[in-house]
Amino acid sequence: MAEQPAAASGSGDPPQPEQPSKNALKKAQKEKEKAEKKAAAQARELAERQKKEAADAEDVSKDSYGELPLIGSAAFKPTGTPRIDLSTAADNEDKEVTFRCWVENARVQSAKLAFVNLRQGLNTVQAVAAATDGVSKQMVKFCGNVSTESTLVVTGLVKRVKEPIKSASIKDFEIHILKLFVEVKAEVPLPLQVEDAERPLPESGLGDEDEKQTESNAKPLVGLNTRLNNRTLDLRAKINHAIFVIKSGVCALFQEFLSQKGFVLIQTPKILGAASEGGANVFEVKYFDRQAYLAQSPQFYKQMLIASRFQKVMEIGPVFRAENSNTARHLTEFTGLDLEMEFQEHYHEVMSVLEDLMLFIFKELNARYKKETELVRSAYHVEDFKLPESGKVPRIPFQEGIKMLREAGEELGDYDDLSTPQEKHLGRLVLEKYNSDFYVLDQFPLAIRPAYTMPSPHNPELSNSYDMFMRGQEILSGAQRIHNAELLAEQMRKHDPPIDPNGPGTKEYVDSFRYGCPPHGGGGFGLERIVQFWLGLPNIRMCSLFPRDPQRVTP
Amino acid sequence: MAEQPAAASGSGDPPQPEQPSKNALKKAQKEKEKAEKKAAAQARELAERQKKEAADAEDVSKDSYGELPLIGSAAFKPTGTPRIDLSTAADNEDKEVTFRCWVENARVQSAKLAFVNLRQGLNTVQAVAAATDGVSKQMVKFCGNVSTESTLVVTGLVKRVKEPIKSASIKDFEIHILKLFVEVKAEVPLPLQVEDAERPLPESGLGDEDEKQTESNAKPLVGLNTRLNNRTLDLRAKINHAIFVIKSGVCALFQEFLSQKGFVLIQTPKILGAASEGGANVFEVKYFDRQAYLAQSPQFYKQMLIASRFQKVMEIGPVFRAENSNTARHLTEFTGLDLEMEFQEHYHEVMSVLEDLMLFIFKELNARYKKETELVRSAYHVEDFKLPESGKVPRIPFQEGIKMLREAGEELGDYDDLSTPQEKHLGRLVLEKYNSDFYVLDQFPLAIRPAYTMPSPHNPELSNSYDMFMRGQEILSGAQRIHNAELLAEQMRKHDPPIDPNGPGTKEYVDSFRYGCPPHGGGGFGLERIVQFWLGLPNIRMCSLFPRDPQRVTP
Repeated sequence: MAEQPAAASGSGDPPQPEQPSKNALKKAQKEKEKAEKKAAAQARELAERQKKEAADAEDVSKDSYGELPLIGSAAFKPTGTPRIDLSTAADNEDKEVTFRCWVENARVQSAKLAFVNLRQGLNTVQAVAAATDGVSKQMVKFCGNVSTESTLVVTGLVKRVKEPIKSASIKDFEIHILKLFVEVKAEVPLPLQVEDAERPLPESGLGDEDEKQTESNAKPLVGLNTRLNNRTLDLRAKINHAIFVIKSGVCALFQEFLSQKGFVLIQTPKILGAASEGGANVFEVKYFDRQAYLAQSPQFYKQMLIASRFQKVMEIGPVFRAENSNTARHLTEFTGLDLEMEFQEHYHEVMSVLEDLMLFIFKELNARYKKETELVRSAYHVEDFKLPESGKVPRIPFQEGIKMLREAGEELGDYDDLSTPQEKHLGRLVLEKYNSDFYVLDQFPLAIRPAYTMPSPHNPELSNSYDMFMRGQEILSGAQRIHNAELLAEQMRKHDPPIDPNGPGTKEYVDSFRYGCPPHGGGGFGLERIVQFWLGLPNIRMCSLFPRDPQRVTP
Repeated sequence: MAEQPAAASGSGDPPQPEQPSKNALKKAQKEKEKAEKKAAAQARELAERQKKEAADAEDVSKDSYGELPLIGSAAFKPTGTPRIDLSTAADNEDKEVTFRCWVENARVQSAKLAFVNLRQGLNTVQAVAAATDGVSKQMVKFCGNVSTESTLVVTGLVKRVKEPIKSASIKDFEIHILKLFVEVKAEVPLPLQVEDAERPLPESGLGDEDEKQTESNAKPLVGLNTRLNNRTLDLRAKINHAIFVIKSGVCALFQEFLSQKGFVLIQTPKILGAASEGGANVFEVKYFDRQAYLAQSPQFYKQMLIASRFQKVMEIGPVFRAENSNTARHLTEFTGLDLEMEFQEHYHEVMSVLEDLMLFIFKELNARYKKETELVRSAYHVEDFKLPESGKVPRIPFQEGIKMLREAGEELGDYDDLSTPQEKHLGRLVLEKYNSDFYVLDQFPLAIRPAYTMPSPHNPELSNSYDMFMRGQEILSGAQRIHNAELLAEQMRKHDPPIDPNGPGTKEYVDSFRYGCPPHGGGGFGLERIVQFWLGLPNIRMCSLFPRDPQRVTP
C-alpha cells in the first residue's frame, strides 16, 4: 500500500481536498515511483526465490552428496552397506560399490563433468561425476570442489575404460559417482603437499636449504627436514606407506622364521640400573630418586636368558644410542632385531641360522612385498638386490677382506677396523666377485670387538665374531660370546677401556656364567638399516616413522 | 744322595779318615734312616703311581666321560652326531641317542649304580649309570657326582621302564648312560636352588622376610625378592619357562590375528621431546643438551598414524610409567600391546575386533600352550579361565555395572570410578551372571577418561570408551578418539587438569586431525597382565623377565 502524505490525516471530520501544491505533486510522484520500484524489487525477489526453490526441487541428487556430521557413534541405525577394498574394484565391474577413500585431487571440467582422483591404501582410482549419469549439476560442482585430502564415502558404478588411466594405480576401471559424502573435511591449505612427498628426496639430503626447483619439471623438491616436520602428512605418501608395510613385513618374517626354529620372543628391560655395557653413549634417566640408563642393546639380558636355559631367544625392541652421529645411517633410537642361541659345537651354527634367516626374509620380501618394493625402488632408480645364485652366502674371513681391499689399492693394517668408505668399497668388490649384495665378514680382530667376544682359537688377535652386510653397509654385528665367568672377567679387565667385572650391572652378568651356561652366540640387526639397504634409500630417517637423531626429538 | 757333613770337605790333599765321634755316628745313623725312609717313600709313590696307572688302564670307560674343554669353536672336526630333543625320546626306544641337557640332581646309589636326573627345556628324564651295562665304576662315580645345573652332553640308550617314573616328565622311559661329558661345570654352591624356584610363592608375597619353613614339607619357601635377585637361576625353573613361553605366545597370537586383518606393525618413538600426555608420571631423560621424556604409551603416535592413513596399526613395545605404585599388578616398565584402527560407522566395530582378538588368543592358548598353562596353574591351584559358552563376550554398560555393584551392597555414585576391590567384586558378579572371566565395561564416565576420548552422543557425562577385564582385573583401556581438531582442542582445555592444545608435543598431535583423519578407536593391553590373569598368578613381577618397579631396577 502506497503511503499517504502526513498532512492528509487530521481530525474527526473529513478534510476538504486541498489543491495540491507543485512541490507536493512532485513529492507524490517520487513516492509513487519509489513504491513501484519497491514492489518490483519484491516481485523480483519473490520470483528469484521461487525460481531457486524450483531449482532446488530440481536437484535430483540432493540426498546423494554433502557433508556428513561428525561421527560420534550415535545410535543411528548403521547403514550396514558393505564397504569394499579398492583392490577388489576389478571384481565388481558394472556393479555398484561403496567405499571410504580420500581425495588426491578434484577438478571441475565443465558444468556437467567433474573428476575426483581417489585413494585408499596404495590404490588410486579415477572417479567421474557426470550430469549425463543423472547426477545434478549442483552435485557435479560439489564433487569437483572437495578439498584435497578430505575423507569421503563414495558410492558408484565400476566401469571399464577404453584407454588405460595413467594417473591411477587402477588403470582399467573408473568409478561413475552416484553418491559422494565428505566424511571428514581437510583444511585448506595443506602445510605439505602429499604429491611432493611422493617424489624422491633431493640429492643434497637433509636440510631445508634444499627446497629447490629442478629445471626439468619446475616442481619443488621438498627436503627431508620439511617432510619430517610435517610427518603425518608426509607419511600419507604411497612411497612411505610402502616403506612401512615392508618394515612391518621384515618383523613378521623375522619372527616367522625364528619361531619355527623354536625361538622364544622376549622383552628385556630398557631402563637399566647401571650403564653396564661400557658407559659411553648412554642416555641417563631420572628414576625416582636415583640415576638410571637406557639400554644400548639387549646384549647382557639376552645372554643371561641363555644362562637361564632359554636356548633360543629373539627380541624386537627399541635400542638407544646417545651417539652424536649426524649421518645418513645413524639414529639415536632404532629398532633392534636381536637373537641369541646356544649352539652345539661351533659358532658357525649360529652364522648359518643368521644367513638362512636373511635369505628367507629376502626371498619372502620379493614374494610377498613385490609391489611395495618396486614402488619404492622405482622412485629412487635402485637396482634389484642381488643374492648368490648358489644360495650360499659368501663368508669372507676378515683377513681375506683386508687382502681384497689392499689389492684394490686401499692401505690398511691387518687388524685395522674398516672405515665406512672401505666397507662400501669392499661391498663393490664382493658384488663383483660373488655377484651378491649380501655377505658375511668373519673372524674380526679381537681388539675392535666388545669384551665378551670369544677369542679365536686359531689366532689370539682374532675373534669368533662376524658382521653382515647389505650393499656394502653393516646390518648386523654378532659373535660367539664367552660363556665362562673367569675368562669373561679376565677379558673385561684386559679390554680397552677396561671394564670392572665386579661393577654394578656387570657383576650379575658375569655371575650368570658360573652355573653351567652353554656355549652360545647371536647378533643384533638394525631393522631400519635392513629396510634402507633393501630398498636402496639414501637416508635411514626415511625408515623410521618418527626418527630421532641428535637434532630431532619431535614430532 | 745323602748329605756329607760340612767338616768332611777340606783342602787339596785327601784328608785322613778320622775316628768318628759318638755324635757324628748318631748323626750318620739319622741320615741313613732318613735316606731309607725317603727311598721307601719314593718306592711307595712309584708303586701307587703304577697301581693307579694300571687302574686307569683298567677303566674301560675312560673315553666315555670327563670334562670337555671350553668350546672356543676350534677347528676340530665337529662330531656331527645329531643331538635329539628329549621330547622325541619315546620315538627312540632301544636306540642310542645323544643330547645336551643339564643336571637337576645326581646321586651315587652304590659303587655300581648312579642316577642323574636330566633336564632339557620343559622335559626331564631319569638317566642311569650302571656298572652292569659295561660302564666302569670310575665312570659311575663320576656320573653320580656331577654338580647340579652343570651342562652335559649325554649318550645313552632309551629304555622303557616297568614302573612310571614319578619324578620326571618322561615317565615311561629312562636313559642308560653310555657316555657322559660335562660341557660346562656349575659352581658349588648355587645361590638359589632351582628346585625352590619351582614352588609357588609364599602367600605373603614380596619381601625377603617371607623366607619361611612350612610345617608340611619343611622346605624353604623362597620369597619373590630373593628369586628376583637371583633371576637367572630363578628363571631356570620350569614354571618360569612356561610363563615366558606363554608370554611369547600371546605376542605371536596378537600379531597373527591382527596381521590377518590387515594391521601393520609399527614402532613409535620412546623418547619424546615433550611430556605431551599430561605430564605426570613421566620419566625424564637427558637428551644431549636438552630434556626429553620416556613415552607413557604410543597413544599420540598411533593416532597420528591413523591420520597418516595407516588405517590399522599395532605395536608391541615397552611402556614407561613413573608411578610410585608398589602393588602386585603395577610395573614401571611393561609391554604394551597396542592397536588403533579406523572404523566405518560405530566404535563398537573396534570393540568387536578387540573381543574377537582376545577370544582367539584364549582359544589358541588353550590349544597351543595347554602344557605350559597346566604346568603353571597346577602349581598355584588356579581355576580354568572361563569363557562365555555363547561365544559372545558380555558387554556391560558402565551404568549397569554400577547398578550390579549397588545391588550387591557397594556404595558408589553414578559417575564414580571403580576402585580395585570394586572391580574385583564386579568380576565375581559378572562371573556368576554370565559365567565368563572375560568381559567389557562400556561407556565410561567422560570425566575419568583422557581428554582425547569421544564424548557419548547419548549422555554428555559419558564417553565412547571401554575397559576389558580378566578375572575382575583390567587388562585394556580403550575408546573412540576425537578425530576433529577443534573438538579435541576444546576438550583438552576443559579437561581436569587442562591441557594446552598448542603446547609442545600436543600441537602437532592436534594439528594432525585437521586434514581429513577418519573416525578411529583402539586400545592398549598390558601384556604382563594378560599373562598374569590368564594363569592366575599372584604377582605381575612373575610375568616380567627382569621386572622394574619403584624399588627395583636390577638385575
